[in-house]
Amino acid sequence: MPDRLYLYDTTLRDGQQTHGVQFSTSEKQRIAKALDALGIDYVEGGWPGANPTDSAFFDAAPTLTARLAAFGMTKRAGRSAENDDVLAAVLNAGTDTVCLVGKTDTTHVSGALGISKEENLENIRASIAHVTAKGREAIFDAEHFFDGFATDPAYAALAARTGYEAGARWVVLCDTNGGAMPQEITAGIRAVIDVGVPGDHIGIHTHDDTGQAVANSLAAIDAGARQIQGTLNGLGERCGNANLTTLIPTLVLKPAFADRFETGVTEDALAELRHISRLLDDILNRVPVKQAPYVGASAFVHKAGLHASAIAKDPSLYEHVEPAAVGNARVVPMSNQAGQSNLRARLKEAGIEVAKDDPALGRILDTVKAREAAGYSYDTAQGSFELLALAELGRLPDFFEVKRYRVTVERRKNRYDRMVSVSEAVVVVKIGDQKMLSVSESMDVEGRDRGPVNALAKALAKDLGPYQSLVEDIRLVDFKVRITDGGTEAVTRVIIDSEDGAGRRWSTVGVSANIVDASFEALLDAVRWKLVRDGAKTAA
Amino acid sequence: MPDRLYLYDTTLRDGQQTHGVQFSTSEKQRIAKALDALGIDYVEGGWPGANPTDSAFFDAAPTLTARLAAFGMTKRAGRSAENDDVLAAVLNAGTDTVCLVGKTDTTHVSGALGISKEENLENIRASIAHVTAKGREAIFDAEHFFDGFATDPAYAALAARTGYEAGARWVVLCDTNGGAMPQEITAGIRAVIDVGVPGDHIGIHTHDDTGQAVANSLAAIDAGARQIQGTLNGLGERCGNANLTTLIPTLVLKPAFADRFETGVTEDALAELRHISRLLDDILNRVPVKQAPYVGASAFVHKAGLHASAIAKDPSLYEHVEPAAVGNARVVPMSNQAGQSNLRARLKEAGIEVAKDDPALGRILDTVKAREAAGYSYDTAQGSFELLALAELGRLPDFFEVKRYRVTVERRKNRYDRMVSVSEAVVVVKIGDQKMLSVSESMDVEGRDRGPVNALAKALAKDLGPYQSLVEDIRLVDFKVRITDGGTEAVTRVIIDSEDGAGRRWSTVGVSANIVDASFEALLDAVRWKLVRDGAKTAA
Repeated sequence: MPDRLYLYDTTLRDGQQTHGVQFSTSEKQRIAKALDALGIDYVEGGWPGANPTDSAFFDAAPTLTARLAAFGMTKRAGRSAENDDVLAAVLNAGTDTVCLVGKTDTTHVSGALGISKEENLENIRASIAHVTAKGREAIFDAEHFFDGFATDPAYAALAARTGYEAGARWVVLCDTNGGAMPQEITAGIRAVIDVGVPGDHIGIHTHDDTGQAVANSLAAIDAGARQIQGTLNGLGERCGNANLTTLIPTLVLKPAFADRFETGVTEDALAELRHISRLLDDILNRVPVKQAPYVGASAFVHKAGLHASAIAKDPSLYEHVEPAAVGNARVVPMSNQAGQSNLRARLKEAGIEVAKDDPALGRILDTVKAREAAGYSYDTAQGSFELLALAELGRLPDFFEVKRYRVTVERRKNRYDRMVSVSEAVVVVKIGDQKMLSVSESMDVEGRDRGPVNALAKALAKDLGPYQSLVEDIRLVDFKVRITDGGTEAVTRVIIDSEDGAGRRWSTVGVSANIVDASFEALLDAVRWKLVRDGAKTAA
Repeated sequence: MPDRLYLYDTTLRDGQQTHGVQFSTSEKQRIAKALDALGIDYVEGGWPGANPTDSAFFDAAPTLTARLAAFGMTKRAGRSAENDDVLAAVLNAGTDTVCLVGKTDTTHVSGALGISKEENLENIRASIAHVTAKGREAIFDAEHFFDGFATDPAYAALAARTGYEAGARWVVLCDTNGGAMPQEITAGIRAVIDVGVPGDHIGIHTHDDTGQAVANSLAAIDAGARQIQGTLNGLGERCGNANLTTLIPTLVLKPAFADRFETGVTEDALAELRHISRLLDDILNRVPVKQAPYVGASAFVHKAGLHASAIAKDPSLYEHVEPAAVGNARVVPMSNQAGQSNLRARLKEAGIEVAKDDPALGRILDTVKAREAAGYSYDTAQGSFELLALAELGRLPDFFEVKRYRVTVERRKNRYDRMVSVSEAVVVVKIGDQKMLSVSESMDVEGRDRGPVNALAKALAKDLGPYQSLVEDIRLVDFKVRITDGGTEAVTRVIIDSEDGAGRRWSTVGVSANIVDASFEALLDAVRWKLVRDGAKTAA
C-alpha cells in the first residue's frame, strides 16, 4: 500500500510575505476554498493577533474539509505558556491545528534571542505541551533547521525531537533562508529520524533562493518526510516558497512518486490545477508566468523548427506528461486544426452551435488573435468572447447604438469646508428611431461618491426603453484594471464582472488608452450579453 | 586542485526557442559580449543555415575570449557527411566549435526518423568524425538521452559512447522533454561513464518542466559531468532551459560546489550578474522576474517583522549569501507585519534619521497600519511612505494646496462621423497667497486621447509657480490599478511610477472608490516627493 503524503499550504501566511502581496479577508476565503477543492490537507490561514486581516479571516473562517491551521510562535522566555499573550491570541482563533515556530539553530538562540540553549528547548516543550493540553493538534515549525544542522547538528536534532516528544503531530524542518542543497536536506532529515522522530511525523518547508525548493522538497520525501509545505504559484518571501502548483503534478503524475505515494488530490481535482493557479493570479492582479511548469501558457507550446515533423507524427514524443491532466493544453502554432475544434467546443458550451466547416470559425480565430494583440484578453471575459463570435456569425442583434457620452469628475470643498468629490455621467443612446438621454451621478445610498465608472453604468442602464426591464437587475460585482501592451502602446484593460437577479455572473472586457473609455466598452458588452441571453427582440 | 567546470550558454540558440522570442543580429552580438565578459566558456550562436539572423550573426561574429559554437544536426541517412548540405552550412560558419544534435532514444530513431539503430549510430560516427577531420572541436548533443535511457539504457549509452569514440570533445546528455528527476540524471550519467566516456567529457543539458532544471544540472555535476549548459534568465522552449543566472552563483558561492570546482567566472564578473540579467530583460522588453533567485528585485527583501529585528542585529542570519556578491542589494520594506526596527532601517535608507525612542515611530506604524487597512500599500510605494513619515515627524513642508479639480471625459462622433474621445482637466492650486488655475487636455503628440489621468497630470504640472522648474521633468512611466478591500468597501488602489531628468524613479500610491481621485492622490504625492528630494523651499 502506498504511503500517504500530506500537503500543507501556507499561501495565506508565508505567501503573504511576498513583497507587494496583502490579501483581503474575502480573498483569503476564496483562496482557502480553492485549496480545499484541490484536496490540500492543511490550510494555514495566518497569524492571529499579528495582523488585522489574519484575525478577521479566522473570525469568519470558511468551512473546509481540510484542517485549518493558525500560525504563531513558541512562548517567550521568562514567562509560562499560559501567560504568553501572543500565544494566547493564536489559540483564541479556535483552529483544530496550531503551528508554532521555534528556534533550532544555536546561532539564532544566542544571537537573535539571547537566551540559553536549555531555555530554548523549554520554550518549545512548554508551548507544544500547552497546545496539546488544550486538545489541539500541534505542529512544531523548526525554523532555520538546516542552517542549525550545519552549525550544531546534535542540538538541531535535539530541538526537533523536543517538539515531537512534547506531543507535536508534525515536526516541520525549515530551510528558512532557502540556501540548502538537496544533499543537506537529505542528511538533516535522516539525522532527525535517527534521533527518534518517525518520518511520518516529519514535514519539509523550503524556499527557492537557489532555485531548488521543489527538488529539496522531493529529496525530503525520499529521505522519509511525509508532510510537504508550499504555496500556490510559489508565492512567498524573497524568491518564494516551494511551488505546490509544480510539486503536486510531479507527485501525482510521475511514476517515481506516484508509484510509492498517495495524496489527497484526485485526478479530477488535478485537472483544475491550471484554473486554480490563474485564480490566484487574478486575485493578485498578476500576469501569469508563461514558463511555469505544468500550468504555464508556454508549458506545452511546441515552437516549430527542428522537431516539426516528429511533433506532427506524435506530440507525446516531445511531452513529459499529458497537458490535459493539469487542465492545460498543447499548443502547436503551425496547425490551426486544433484551434478550430477547440473553438467549436467552447462555443457549444455557450449554447452557440456552429457547423464544422463554417468559414466564420476561421474569422473568429483571426479576430480573437488581432484583438489579443491589441491588448484584449478572452481567457476570462467569456461574455465579450461570445458577443465577438455572434457578431462574426452574423447573429448579434443590433439592440441600440450609443451616440455619445460625457462624464465629469469634480473634487472641491463642500459647505462644511471638507473636500468631497462627485461624478456625473450623461449617456445618449438611439433605440430604433428614438433617442434617449440619461444622466446619473455616482452617489451610493449613503451619499458617498463611487466614481465615474459607477456613474456611467447607472446612466447607461437608466433608460433603455423596451429593454429596460431586462437590464434593471444587472449589478456590477467586480472591476479589474490592468495596464498591458496593445501593439506598441501601453493600454488599459478593464474586466467587469456583472451579476443579475437570477444569480448569473458574466465577465466582459474593454481596452483603451483611456481608462473611462475601456470601462464603458466593458459595460456596454455586459448589457448586450444580458439582452442576448434573455432573448431580447430588437426594437427596430 | 579543484576540478574545472565548463559553462556553455545556449541563450542565442535554445533560448530563441522561447515562444515570442526572436533576436536581431545586433541583439545577439550584445548578448554574446555580455556572456563573454561574465566568463562563460562556450557561447552557442545559433544554427547557421536554418535561420537568417543566425547566419547573419556568424557572418559578423564578435571577437570573444569564449569559444563560439555553431549548432546543427548530424548527417541524414542515405548520404555521406561530406554531401550533407545542412551539415555543410554549419561548418561554413567557420567556428572553432561545432555542436551536432543526434538521436539516442530508440523510440525516436524508429518513430521519428524511421531508420535502423545501426544507421543512427553511423550518422553520429560519420558526422563527428567529419567535424574533427576539418580540425574543429566537435560536441555531440545527445537529444532525448534520459528518455532513451529509460526505454533502452544500453542503446542510449552506446550512442553516447559512439560520439565520444568518433572524436567528440564533449558528449552532452540532454533531458530534451524536461521531465527527468535528479535520480534519473545521476543514473544516466553514471552509466555513460561506466561504458567508457570520462566525466570530464560529459555535459548536461536540462529543461525546467518539473521545476528541477537547476537541481538536475547540479546532480549531473555530482555524478561526474563537467560541462553545464543553460541560458540567461532561464530562457528556452516551454518552461525554459537550466537558468545559468541561478546556477552560476551557486557554483561560485556555495561551499558544496565552490570547494570542489572552479569556473571561468571571477568574483568581479559575478558582481555584474544582476546587471547582465537585466540587460537581457531590457533587450526582450520583459518585466524582470522579481522572485528570481540571486538577481531578482525580491531576492533579498525582508518583509516579516519577526525577521526584521534579527536582521538589524545580523543580516547574515536571514541571508544565504551576501547580496552584493551578485550585484544585488538588501531591501527592508514597510508593511503591516513590520516592527519599529524595520521602520527605522527603512527610513535610514531613505536618508531620514530618527532616534530610537522617537514617539513618532509608533505614530508612523499606526498610520501605516490604518492606511493599509483602508486599502493603501506601502510595499512598493516608497515615495508615499516617505511623505507619510515626514508628515508624522513634522518635517513635511507645506508646498501648496489643491483647492479643487475637475476632469471631463467625452466620447462622441467627430466631423468625419467617427467616434473619438477627449479628456480635459482643470486644476486649481494655492501657493502661498496666490491661486493658480491650469487646464490641459489628454492628447499625445500624435493627437490621440491618453485619458483623464494623463490630462490631470499635465494640468497639475502646468503651473506650480516657484516650483515649476523642479516639476517640469517629471514623467509618468508606469500606472498600476487594482481593486482592493478598504475596510468594508471595495476601493481602487493606484500606484504610479515617476521618473525625472536625472533618471531617478519613485512610486506613489492613492486610494479611493473613485479611480480618478485615487490617481490624482498618487500624482500629488509624486510631485511632493520630487519637491522634498530636491529641497524646494516653501513659497509661504
